[in-house]
Order: sequence, then structure tokens, then C-alpha cells
Amino acid sequence: MFKFSFIETTTDRARLGRIETPHGVVETPAFIFCATKAAMKSVTADQMREAETQIILSNTYHLMLQPGADVVAHHGGLQKFTGWRRPMLTDSGGFQIFSLGHGSIANEIKGRQHGYRQKTLLRISEEGARFKSYIDGSTWMLTPEESIRIQCKLGADMIVVLDECTPFHVEKSYTKESMEMSHRWAKRCLVTFDELNEQKTQRLYGIIQGGVFEDLRDQSCDFVNTHPFFGHAIGGSLGASKEQMYDVVNYTASKLDRARPIHLLGIGGIRDIFNGVRAGIDTFDCVHPTRLARHGGALVKPGHMDTGKREHLNLRNQQFQKDNNPIEPDCECSTCRQYTRGYLHHLLKAQEMVVFTLISIHNIFFMNRLLKDIRSALKTGTLDAAEKKWITPNE
Amino acid sequence: MFKFSFIETTTDRARLGRIETPHGVVETPAFIFCATKAAMKSVTADQMREAETQIILSNTYHLMLQPGADVVAHHGGLQKFTGWRRPMLTDSGGFQIFSLGHGSIANEIKGRQHGYRQKTLLRISEEGARFKSYIDGSTWMLTPEESIRIQCKLGADMIVVLDECTPFHVEKSYTKESMEMSHRWAKRCLVTFDELNEQKTQRLYGIIQGGVFEDLRDQSCDFVNTHPFFGHAIGGSLGASKEQMYDVVNYTASKLDRARPIHLLGIGGIRDIFNGVRAGIDTFDCVHPTRLARHGGALVKPGHMDTGKREHLNLRNQQFQKDNNPIEPDCECSTCRQYTRGYLHHLLKAQEMVVFTLISIHNIFFMNRLLKDIRSALKTGTLDAAEKKWITPNE
Repeated sequence: MFKFSFIETTTDRARLGRIETPHGVVETPAFIFCATKAAMKSVTADQMREAETQIILSNTYHLMLQPGADVVAHHGGLQKFTGWRRPMLTDSGGFQIFSLGHGSIANEIKGRQHGYRQKTLLRISEEGARFKSYIDGSTWMLTPEESIRIQCKLGADMIVVLDECTPFHVEKSYTKESMEMSHRWAKRCLVTFDELNEQKTQRLYGIIQGGVFEDLRDQSCDFVNTHPFFGHAIGGSLGASKEQMYDVVNYTASKLDRARPIHLLGIGGIRDIFNGVRAGIDTFDCVHPTRLARHGGALVKPGHMDTGKREHLNLRNQQFQKDNNPIEPDCECSTCRQYTRGYLHHLLKAQEMVVFTLISIHNIFFMNRLLKDIRSALKTGTLDAAEKKWITPNE
Repeated sequence: MFKFSFIETTTDRARLGRIETPHGVVETPAFIFCATKAAMKSVTADQMREAETQIILSNTYHLMLQPGADVVAHHGGLQKFTGWRRPMLTDSGGFQIFSLGHGSIANEIKGRQHGYRQKTLLRISEEGARFKSYIDGSTWMLTPEESIRIQCKLGADMIVVLDECTPFHVEKSYTKESMEMSHRWAKRCLVTFDELNEQKTQRLYGIIQGGVFEDLRDQSCDFVNTHPFFGHAIGGSLGASKEQMYDVVNYTASKLDRARPIHLLGIGGIRDIFNGVRAGIDTFDCVHPTRLARHGGALVKPGHMDTGKREHLNLRNQQFQKDNNPIEPDCECSTCRQYTRGYLHHLLKAQEMVVFTLISIHNIFFMNRLLKDIRSALKTGTLDAAEKKWITPNE
């Protein structure tokens, strides 16, 4: 039921792949959209499919607390419960536990601010992570075994091991010890996964830690390469700048077993994706396209930008009030085929929720077309030309 | 471009009609959904069409303040601006001015509470109504002429005269004087409409006032019958109880020129619609189906009710957590074809906005199927049987 196959391209380490799952095929490079609580924010499953989406992910942390893994299992698993019915991935729950624990892990592992052990994260130990529910303050314990048990009940095609999301602003010694504990947790995940995955309906991804330290990344790559994971996900801190992120991703991806699909966790800027693809990344995920939509931001190609500096239009701006154009005149999404920037601007001003649906549909379609264009360009060896179409060169 | 035709049925004064407009045909009896600020709440135009909707309405009051009639005209009028492109109606703006002025006009004209001239309604005079914008507190004057000018710019197929929405808890003398002023306003509306509607792309509805007083209703029916309106809308206070409302509607409809379509303003309960249809009403509007959805309520036929007393299920109830059924197993809407009550319950608990889309789609489809069923039943003289299918008999 599962298979990963790929062909090499002439562009750096970029490759064209296929991840076959019981719920369908994912053509790679691909973007994975976040349906955090078993729902895309403001977008229905029909609209996701119409926007040419291949795969979505849900978050174990949110679903274990509400409605609980047993309820999802009662409803036949995530693909059926959500009405999506196509390939899905779940994360381990760790990211949110550490995120809510540290304040904002997204800021923290990207090195943008200091974080402290506080708030809802109560204790990390060899056993697992103890935390308070963001819903009712009740105390929970997430162990590697429990994360796998929950993910098996949720039933996504691809699931991932529990790891500690190591902060950026810590000593190398902490990063090393944290990585080593994550490796021990990963082994425990493999044991539990082997017990539970009798039907072979799911596959497990290992996670590479090691922060910005090449020797640690080497060790972590060795670890995942030599354990029976279906795929690998690059996690941990990727540094404090875009340049450092590209270096860490490029270095790490170069050390990974190419027989397995490689996922880059939480990265989804357009420029980041081109860099990732060249480094050999197969799949990306990020909340950016849908979160941006909820702030009135519509992704656009360079020719349609208002300032030439951002990858999106802020449709709240008064300049769009009488704009008769769609977000992008050359876009074939259902929003661009039917609505003007002026109408979307009005809906934002009028606080009509449907505007988040309409902009999200565009942003989702935009990302899917970006990845489709990248796949086409890789076939013909024209990734440089494609990149010029999607990114302003002088940023 | 415009034509109203109908055939009599064997059921009381019920009839089967067709309202032809430049944007398409409305088969009557029909339900008109509220797209207050030029958007259905949480539902796209595509989803409205898929749910078999024929016609929607927008509110002049909201649109004159934001984005302004000139902006809508710049975008080609409401049908194009909204992406709906099918028949539309606008109200005059009066209802909201008086509603915000009196507190809640819906409660007031239905006789549920006392209301006072206060809040945003500054002054009603022969000239028109002076009020404060709910957006920024600025002072506005809505005259009969201005309401028509705005509605002509908005461009809906059917528009209505400005009237004073007379409260329930006033003396008969007030109701009479208010009605007479509304008649004078209606004449001024006709003059302005004749000047502006050179292209004959719109049609004007008159409104019947007179509260719960038969002699006043007689006078108001005489007034509209003898003036060149395309259609008639029954407005004003309909009393303090369902029984009184049915009496007022039945009495008023019996006095109206049957050559013109008859609209009943702001009424949309299932039982109310059956009563209205028997009384000869052609179109209904009400925020109920979509407002109910935003509170987690899904409309259901008697066989699917949880208590047997309400016309809806409250999907927030814990009893639905593990319910594998769709809202209605025999419903063909896109929500019932794909999602369980358990999933919708989860989305409500998780505060995922998309649930309002999914329940709204069901409720809209439900109302459209109700009216379709009524039209079918009228053809075959089986309205009594249809009513038993849609309403619990012993309520």
C-alpha cells in the first residue's frame, strides 16, 4: 500500500517523487496544508480538493485533548472523520507541548527570542513530557509510546516520532543531550509502532535533531538512516536567519538516505521552498498560506505585488476598494475566477467571515500551483526560469 | 425582462408562480436568503448555487454605510460584485434604521417588548429618518428619494419603498399616522424610481402597513393596489403571537391584488411558511436558517428531531459526539453527503469556523427543498400531506 519512488533531476539534489499511500498518491515536491483540529480553517474538504490539494496534516496535540483519539477512531479515523479521504499526516504532539510551554516555539526554534520552561509545559523527563491542557488546565503526560498509540488511533497515513523541540537559545551541550533523548524516544516509538501497525496501514517518520551544529546533525542523520523509518523529517532549530536555515537544511538533507522521502517541518515561504527543493526536500508544511489569509493577505507572484517586496497583497489596504481585478488575473482558482480585489476588500472591512474562505482558497491553490510548476520545471530542467517567475530576484 | 405569472391551485389561496428578472427566474413560493452586507454569512456564491438557492437579498442600510452605493455601482452592481449573478432583492434601509433606533425592531414589531425612540435613530420626520452610523457615529439622513437612489445604484432586480417600521406597542392613532406617512413616502419613492429606472432593469415593491388593525390594513392594501408597484410586501407589526400573525397575514394577503407577487417580510419558520403559502404569499425572507447555523442549530424534519418539539438539532449537545449519522440521513446536501453529526459537534467544540459553513449549507438546502416540496405538493394538490412530512402535527 505504501511506496516511495523518485527520479533524479539535473538540478542539484532536487528530485521528482511519488509517495503512494492507502488514501492516494502524493506527487513530490509537495506542500502539506495544516488542518490543525481535523479541519482546515474556513475551508471545506470539497474546496481543498477543488484547489488541487494532495495532502493535509492534523495535530495530535489538539486532537488528543479534543475530541480525543478514541472519538476519532470511533468515526473511522481522520480521513473519514474530516471528509477529506485523501492522504494525511499527523505530527507527534510534541511541537505544541513545547510551543505552549516555551511561549512561542516557532519564534524560539527560529532563534527570534528567548524562551523559558514555564506556562503549560510542566516537566520534560526521560519518560516524556508532562503538560497542562490549554482547554481546561488538566494535567496530561505524553510519552513516545502514547504519541504513537494516539496517532495510530487517529489513523493518518504518515505519522511521526515524538521528539523534544530543542530551543535555539541553549548551550550546545543541551542540544546534544536533547537530541540523544529524542533518539531514545524514537526507538521507543518504533517498538510501539511495530506492535500497533499490524495492518500496515500507516508509516512512521523519524525526526532529525541537532540544531545548527553540523556534528550533531551528522549523528542524528546517522541515527535515522540506520533505523527502519519510512521517511525522515528535518526538525529542531534551523538557526536565526534565512541564510543559516538554508545552510542547515542543505547540510542535513545531504546526509540523509535518499531512498526515503524527506520532509522539512514548518517551512513554507516561496523562496524557502525553492531552496528546499534544490536541497532534496520532498515535502513541506506550514500554516503560512492559511494564516496569512486570515489576516487579509493574498499570495501573489512578483508581477502582481503592490510593493515588489512582499510575497502577498494586504487586501485590507484602501487602495483596493475600487480595484476591479481578481487577486491575480492569471490565476485559475475559484476565487480569482469570480471575485475582485474590491469585493474582498469590502468583505474584510465588513468583517464577513466568508472572506477568509475566499482568500484561503486562493492561497491554497497558489501553493499547489507553485509546487506543480516546480515539478514541471524539474522535468524539463528549467527550475531557474520557474524561480524567476515566482520570486522577485533582488530580495 | 420582468414578468410575474402564476397558476391557481386547489389549496386555499396558494398559487404557483414565476417571477422573471434580468438575472433569471424565481419559481414561487420561494425563500429569499439574507446576504446582509453583500455576502452570505460563511457561505460562498458557489455553495449557495449548489444548495439550489434561487434568490438572495442585501440590506441597503449596511451597504450605504460600507462600502457605499457608489462603490457597488463601480463594481457593476450587487449581482456582479457578490459573484452571485442571479436574482436579488434589496430592502429600503428603513428596517435597520428603526431597529437600531428602537433597540431590537424584530422584538418590537413582533410585540415582545417595549421600545423607545433612542439610540441611533435621531429623528423621524416627514422628510425622512435621521440616524447615526453604527460604524462611526456619523449622522445620516435617509429619505424615500435617497433610499431609491441608493437601491438603484446597488442594482438589485427587486427593490422596496422606504417605510416607517411602526412599533407594536403604540396607540392605534400612531399606527394610522405612521401608515399614512409611509404611503406619502411610497409615492415619493415611485416618482424617484420612475426617473431613475429608465433602463427598466429593476422593479419596485410597495409595503403594506397598518399593524394589527383590519381597517388600517384595508386602507394600506387599497393604497398599494392602486399604485403602480410591481409587487407587494407585507410589513409592519404582525402582532404578539403566532396566531395573531397568521390572522394578520391571512387577512392582508386576501385584500391584495393577485396580479402582483406578494412578499412576507422577515418571516421564515417552517410552520409560518405553510400558513403563508395557504394565505397566498409568494416569497419569504428571514435570517433564521443562517443565524441558527451560527449557533450550531441544524434544521430537521420531524423524524430527525431530538425532542420532537423543535425544528432543529442543537449540534453542540454532547449526545452527538459519537453520532455517525449525517444531520439528516435522507438529505442530499453536500454537508449531509460527507459529514457526520459527530464531526460537526467536534468542530463546534473546537471553534472551527468552517462548521458554520457546513451547517449553513444544510439549512439553506433544507429551506430550498422545503419550498421545492411545497411547489410540488401544490401541483398535485397534496399540501396537507407535505405539511405532515415537514412539521410535527401536535405542536
